Amino acid sequence: MELFAGVDLGGTNVTVALGGADGKIAAERKIPTKSHEGPDGVLRRIGEAVKELGSPPRALGMGVPGLVDLAAGVTKFLPNLPTLWRDVPVRKVLNGALGCDVYLLNDVRTATLGELAFGLGRDAKTFAFFSLGTGVGGGVAVDGKLRLGPLGEAGELGHQTILPDGLPCGCGNRGCLETLASAPAIAAEGVRLLLSGNAPKLHDLTGGDASKVTPEAMARSGDPAILEAIARAARYLAIGVANVIVTLHPELVVIGGGVSGMGEPLFAPLREEVNRRVGKLLGPNPSRIERSALGDRAGILGAIALAARGGKV
Amino acid sequence: MELFAGVDLGGTNVTVALGGADGKIAAERKIPTKSHEGPDGVLRRIGEAVKELGSPPRALGMGVPGLVDLAAGVTKFLPNLPTLWRDVPVRKVLNGALGCDVYLLNDVRTATLGELAFGLGRDAKTFAFFSLGTGVGGGVAVDGKLRLGPLGEAGELGHQTILPDGLPCGCGNRGCLETLASAPAIAAEGVRLLLSGNAPKLHDLTGGDASKVTPEAMARSGDPAILEAIARAARYLAIGVANVIVTLHPELVVIGGGVSGMGEPLFAPLREEVNRRVGKLLGPNPSRIERSALGDRAGILGAIALAARGGKV
Repeated sequence: MELFAGVDLGGTNVTVALGGADGKIAAERKIPTKSHEGPDGVLRRIGEAVKELGSPPRALGMGVPGLVDLAAGVTKFLPNLPTLWRDVPVRKVLNGALGCDVYLLNDVRTATLGELAFGLGRDAKTFAFFSLGTGVGGGVAVDGKLRLGPLGEAGELGHQTILPDGLPCGCGNRGCLETLASAPAIAAEGVRLLLSGNAPKLHDLTGGDASKVTPEAMARSGDPAILEAIARAARYLAIGVANVIVTLHPELVVIGGGVSGMGEPLFAPLREEVNRRVGKLLGPNPSRIERSALGDRAGILGAIALAARGGKV
Repeated sequence: MELFAGVDLGGTNVTVALGGADGKIAAERKIPTKSHEGPDGVLRRIGEAVKELGSPPRALGMGVPGLVDLAAGVTKFLPNLPTLWRDVPVRKVLNGALGCDVYLLNDVRTATLGELAFGLGRDAKTFAFFSLGTGVGGGVAVDGKLRLGPLGEAGELGHQTILPDGLPCGCGNRGCLETLASAPAIAAEGVRLLLSGNAPKLHDLTGGDASKVTPEAMARSGDPAILEAIARAARYLAIGVANVIVTLHPELVVIGGGVSGMGEPLFAPLREEVNRRVGKLLGPNPSRIERSALGDRAGILGAIALAARGGKV
């Protein structure tokens, strides 16, 4: 079987894997990014790590945190890495090291491709993906094709405006979904309730340590005030989901990222509020809303799909 | 040259036209809808009006105000017409009368198709259309194809939530763009300023007659308070436009409908606010924002395009 290499470049770690066009992983490892070494050092070690997986790959796909030129295989701007990786010719460098075709894509679009190729999106031609983690990313596929736009930035669903005069967002806007439904935004509410004595069960769970307040811990706690804070974030998320539904009416909306691990305390108010917003216009449950079945595997699987599809997404 | 028939069914009037696949109109007339006669009477007179245009059409396309089953050529729900036209077999009836193929589509999607086939959308593969009139409708085309969704209701851009706790909208939601940027919503602000004595020029223009306050008259007045009210609506519209831009990153956003006739008092703050919302994330002027070049011709031209494309949109 032909094998393809996938690379998921993060600020802290890089995952490299070999897998088939069917998404079956043959080998995988995680190495530290050591981003202070700069693009040369990081890419050299990625090349070595791929070689150490065994078989030479037919092609390599790589998801990176930022803007890329997909056609050229060059990074344009990775805001969270030192030196920002402006115009790094990743394709040329890794092709030189490995001798195979190399394709680059934004990491959240790569995860969306993973959902499209191997996740719940496999059975849906048109779907939207919301990834709720440190930020809120996303992606959309229309008629089985990932929507990229001129910069590969289509699908930035976390930067929909939900509150016109809301908190400033890192993107330069105010009141973005990211300011309301990211893991830090939700955890901040949890910490506030913990410190004000309104979350006794969360206090027991975390030993009162604010640094241990995560969305998952909040959902597990079951404190009424905490559940209401989660529901509030879910209702903001629902506005973003409903906006995408009226725009594209996808069959499916997939919610991934760490925050999706909260389960029903998130999904029940989310589905309810989407119905309240658009259920009369489009009928009840106009789009299925599901938790990602791939979880944090979507990124590396999408990178393999990117390679297997020869960069045609 | 083969000719195609287009029909634009409104609550008050029906426009019927004959035209080529190039959008050149050969003949056209407008008849009263007389919707109280019910579907049978209305469709009989549409058939007669098409015959009276002269040449028998190769196919007929018809835009209707509501939900249709495109594949079956049956109306599902026209909320503003008596009897609501549930399950009216328009294709069968008009095919019987005229002997040609018949295709049905929602009217705003039909206008979007007009923009795609003959308007500014001709040169843009991916674009969004906002139609600002009595309501706020819309449509989106992705990679040259109109996006319909299971009910033909994708592109209902006027029902994006802009203010989560805003005014109730006819669709059952609150704070929809339609409650903030439709012609009646904008005119209501104008009337308020007129009656409170804060719009002396608008008072001169309308003779103080509130029923003469239209968005166009407001833009013409130049009263500072009126211009600020228009800018406020434009900034709400900008949120809806920016949300579509982060979701799809279209090359082009077309603004049509009567409200677009306000010109620069609408478009200047609209473009400025879109830049403020997403210009840092996606670069300045990420999508061109233009006034429709077709104006109120988009609907009838789209109906002809629908016929010429054999219902493949």
